[in-house]
Amino acid sequence: MKVGERHYRSLWADKPGGPVHIIDQTRLPHAFETRSLDSPEAVAEAIETMRVRGAPLIGVAAAFGIALAMSRDASGDSLHANARRLAATRPTAVNLAWALARMREALQDLAPADRPAAAWFEAQAIADEDVALNEAIGRHGLALVEREHAARGRTVNILTHCNAGWLATVDWGTALAPVYMAHDRGIPVHVWVDETRPRSQGLLTAWELAGHGVPHTLVADNAGGHLMQRGKVDMVLVGADRATRKGDVANKIGTYLKALAARESGIPFYAAVPTPTIDWDIDDALADIPIEERGGEELRIVRGLDAAGRPATLAIAPESTAVANPAFDVTPASLVTGLVTERGVFPAKETALLELFPRLRKSKAFLT
Amino acid sequence: MKVGERHYRSLWADKPGGPVHIIDQTRLPHAFETRSLDSPEAVAEAIETMRVRGAPLIGVAAAFGIALAMSRDASGDSLHANARRLAATRPTAVNLAWALARMREALQDLAPADRPAAAWFEAQAIADEDVALNEAIGRHGLALVEREHAARGRTVNILTHCNAGWLATVDWGTALAPVYMAHDRGIPVHVWVDETRPRSQGLLTAWELAGHGVPHTLVADNAGGHLMQRGKVDMVLVGADRATRKGDVANKIGTYLKALAARESGIPFYAAVPTPTIDWDIDDALADIPIEERGGEELRIVRGLDAAGRPATLAIAPESTAVANPAFDVTPASLVTGLVTERGVFPAKETALLELFPRLRKSKAFLT
Repeated sequence: MKVGERHYRSLWADKPGGPVHIIDQTRLPHAFETRSLDSPEAVAEAIETMRVRGAPLIGVAAAFGIALAMSRDASGDSLHANARRLAATRPTAVNLAWALARMREALQDLAPADRPAAAWFEAQAIADEDVALNEAIGRHGLALVEREHAARGRTVNILTHCNAGWLATVDWGTALAPVYMAHDRGIPVHVWVDETRPRSQGLLTAWELAGHGVPHTLVADNAGGHLMQRGKVDMVLVGADRATRKGDVANKIGTYLKALAARESGIPFYAAVPTPTIDWDIDDALADIPIEERGGEELRIVRGLDAAGRPATLAIAPESTAVANPAFDVTPASLVTGLVTERGVFPAKETALLELFPRLRKSKAFLT
Repeated sequence: MKVGERHYRSLWADKPGGPVHIIDQTRLPHAFETRSLDSPEAVAEAIETMRVRGAPLIGVAAAFGIALAMSRDASGDSLHANARRLAATRPTAVNLAWALARMREALQDLAPADRPAAAWFEAQAIADEDVALNEAIGRHGLALVEREHAARGRTVNILTHCNAGWLATVDWGTALAPVYMAHDRGIPVHVWVDETRPRSQGLLTAWELAGHGVPHTLVADNAGGHLMQRGKVDMVLVGADRATRKGDVANKIGTYLKALAARESGIPFYAAVPTPTIDWDIDDALADIPIEERGGEELRIVRGLDAAGRPATLAIAPESTAVANPAFDVTPASLVTGLVTERGVFPAKETALLELFPRLRKSKAFLT
């Protein structure tokens, strides 16, 4: 998508061998800065510190981390050690495991001398496929927005949580792809943007939407239930860090609360889910999806701009205050109206998903 | 309650005529500062800017605002103009209207010369009654905590939203009174403290609980549903800015989302409601309770301590970002397990409340 007059992806490599360029998302929305990553460790650090974030993007970043590793040391030990290191950066997003499994699959049977070129090729393929998947999600989600608009004959109000926009993917975004497409086609949309404490990724969403000219309003995470009660939300559209074949959705902490409120007010709740985000092996989402617990300083320390417009941090709570900071929650399939995938919109039900993705079901071997 | 070794109320007057002293809650938890208010306008400003906040406390503050007004100008015009000014400071809390109606009732038929003494007496009576009401709420709520403890034989985990502690009242608090009493009696309790964006009153709750030695953990507002899903919450206990005779509860924005999650996980949800917080006249809570919309800078600007430990502010979103900031939401009675009042714990049902408060029903004349 565009930043000013220039088109950007959220991550790119100019040539095989690297470096890999990223937009540093910890500096947004206050500063637009890119960074060059030249080692798998630098990629791991960027994922852990959320310089790159969003389930699709961290999968792609990890794939490029393997490519950087192969350019330095193409041995099998290097492949496996770096895959382990990168897999340990964030536990919840399944795309990470998926992308690393795919890289291993593509590389492990090759002679070491052939691995670097194959690794850069495969990483770039994963990135390009992500763009194509999201564009397809955008088209299918667009039909949902068009339907709401046709039914109401006025601006469609969409609530989203966290950032599932182009910054969270390579381009387009998942939940925001339909929003961008609707806006581009002249369908009036307005987005309620949840702040998404503690890391306030809603500010990334607001930054993206402002850059694209999409009307939006930032609200505290607490406000969504009230807005839905009052008829101010027509649909909820979020991303996912991991979905199960049963239709359960692990997404940014707080998503579940919005899903409960949507059901209570009869508002459709959709999760935009590219195929690599589906974990075909999980039986019990609540029991089996690991929920990342992040540091308490994410809640205690807030980033922003000081009175002079310089980036700065503030402590809002003393260090002595105990903090719990689970990063994700699970929205049970019963609360999910549908999953918007690159193949279409499906009910959040095992039968629907397994029938439509028979090939992918088999691909669960990638994950083991 | 104690601050260090000294016992404080959140608001007090040393003598008739004023000034009225308050703890400046906009400076907490970073600095403990008191302020002296010597005019009704200073009281109105303190309520509007939330230097004093919490439904019970703003009722008491408004009563003292009338007392300050009577000491300056005891005319009927002054009484009515100042009551109007103070009533306009915050629209949602019914205690404000209740306290002002009670002051008018006590003063309007007196000769102007008799009004100042009567006004200070009545304001002090309202303050003292608030302490007694909250102590009674604490005793009734304590029984609920004791019951949970007896049933589980372990620490009772209580989730609270916003600050309904002693800072929100004159002393004790509403929702936190049972917590303090349970802790004082050796019942092990642990409090999940919602941050409560945008104004982060959860930090006041954490400050209060730390001062009293009650174990607690600060969490983002987004976390509560997840915690309840995982069995980490035994009861939800919140305050109220206005309750209806049908048992609907208007409280800090986000309360409704926690009530939905509590019902979903079979967790009892209680609102601590002193009688003056009940609005006997409202038929349709969603339609008829005015919801205060506060300024967008509350979301965009965060207060805290800078790296040098000095109070400072940061902008987390650009001024160009549109913000909606509804301050309260309505939790329908169907989600409320019970109202903890000074007379006992009642089901959130009209029949229960009207039978038990026949005299108070008549007092609705105060509100007109």
